[in-house]
Amino acid sequence: MIIGIIGLGLIGGSLAIDLRSQGYSVLGVSRRMQTCETALRLGIVNDASTELRLLAPANLIFICTPISDIQATVIQLLPHLAPTTVLTDVGSVKTSIVKALDPLWPNFVGGHPMAGTAESGIEAAQADLFVNRAYVLTPTAKTPPTALETVAHVVRLLRAKVFFCRPEEHDRAVAWISHLPVVVSAGLIAACQHEADPTILELAQQLASSGFRDTSRVGGGNPQLGVMMARFNREDVLRSLAAYRQHLDQLTTCIEQENWATLEDHLRQTQQARPKFIHE
Amino acid sequence: MIIGIIGLGLIGGSLAIDLRSQGYSVLGVSRRMQTCETALRLGIVNDASTELRLLAPANLIFICTPISDIQATVIQLLPHLAPTTVLTDVGSVKTSIVKALDPLWPNFVGGHPMAGTAESGIEAAQADLFVNRAYVLTPTAKTPPTALETVAHVVRLLRAKVFFCRPEEHDRAVAWISHLPVVVSAGLIAACQHEADPTILELAQQLASSGFRDTSRVGGGNPQLGVMMARFNREDVLRSLAAYRQHLDQLTTCIEQENWATLEDHLRQTQQARPKFIHE
Repeated sequence: MIIGIIGLGLIGGSLAIDLRSQGYSVLGVSRRMQTCETALRLGIVNDASTELRLLAPANLIFICTPISDIQATVIQLLPHLAPTTVLTDVGSVKTSIVKALDPLWPNFVGGHPMAGTAESGIEAAQADLFVNRAYVLTPTAKTPPTALETVAHVVRLLRAKVFFCRPEEHDRAVAWISHLPVVVSAGLIAACQHEADPTILELAQQLASSGFRDTSRVGGGNPQLGVMMARFNREDVLRSLAAYRQHLDQLTTCIEQENWATLEDHLRQTQQARPKFIHE
Repeated sequence: MIIGIIGLGLIGGSLAIDLRSQGYSVLGVSRRMQTCETALRLGIVNDASTELRLLAPANLIFICTPISDIQATVIQLLPHLAPTTVLTDVGSVKTSIVKALDPLWPNFVGGHPMAGTAESGIEAAQADLFVNRAYVLTPTAKTPPTALETVAHVVRLLRAKVFFCRPEEHDRAVAWISHLPVVVSAGLIAACQHEADPTILELAQQLASSGFRDTSRVGGGNPQLGVMMARFNREDVLRSLAAYRQHLDQLTTCIEQENWATLEDHLRQTQQARPKFIHE
């Protein structure tokens, strides 16, 4: 089987490394010639080009561009495809992408490998990035079972944990555990900058330790990525933010009213609820 | 020099281990006989008792009880002290403690070693817990320089980074980087529980990875500790929460109004601000 990869960044590059080591022939496309040259030099693709037509012989193509470029990329790709070619994407939001691509290409399967790192770009690509990570596939009623099985088979070879759900279920779930944390965490960093007394701000910066480091991590991440999440999953992110604000207000009210027993109940509930979300 | 430690938990026990290995004679007091026996069995104290009078010969005493017990403990301790004995505490809030203890004992120096772990109790005590961690001392105009120098000298032997500031400065700074994150993070866990559809909640729990794990960590911690922070640093925590909510609302408004350029500006600012708080 010949596999095509469009977008040779962290995800696309890491897919290329693993799939080549599985014995597949991997063809890579990047907008930037320099990225193609790097991919060839690193030996993570059999061939690379800035031209989508390179992918004409591919049986399965992973679209690993930024979310905002996926639809336009597919439209340019269509003339080069054989009817049996299976397309899948790696966007962190699914409903809007699946809605846009389902009508364009019957053999499309929405996908989301939940395997980010702080780094990005082909230099950050690594082997086994997807091992034991969740990889969500979001078929619809129209998705051909053979197309779904083709993608699922390859994803299992990456040793990822495969999940199947509807695009809407995926987006609602990741709004809670992936997109809401970014806004919550960014708000924390922004609030600290609010401190008007430079002596206090500097002291806060010096005294900050692991608690602040962890709580602020995703809020200090890639701004474009944060915007994409909010933009393409807007409804679910706003829904999660509304619920979050409600609970934040409840906690604040406990402190205002010195209702310490209720505050302790709330904190005991969060202490008990958290382990269900922690796997490693 | 003879050092007394009241409260042989994570902090008190770890202080005992390091100070004994520095060659000091360490006397430990715990409310629970079993803890005294454990401390003696582990050899982390020279002597231990449930009776405060054991500390009569001590030149320097660390009060390592929960914040809520510090004042009562000192009042019971006073009859046993020589006028030259220096007292210090390890409470994570300083203004209220210093206000309460300054009038009771002239040779008192407020302190806060910023070295917690997920564990607690004497079993969690460990050598070198304070190495390279911040250790804040909060003298007042009334603090005798000799008392401050005595505590600072011992703290430096722990290889902690010593900071000096006013109690009010400490409390305002830690409200931002230590207390606010607990409420922000607890709110995130609580909000996720808000999901009414059990299928979505279960999917969210399964898909949660490092981003959620880190952002939710301090919100899933010890409930009593969270309440103590809010209770004894109430004004500053509420002040930080008010600022936090303002910034959360700004971010939410950007998403509601699809003002993506402004959202990206906010996220770029948080990305640039975070490194100033990160040392390790």
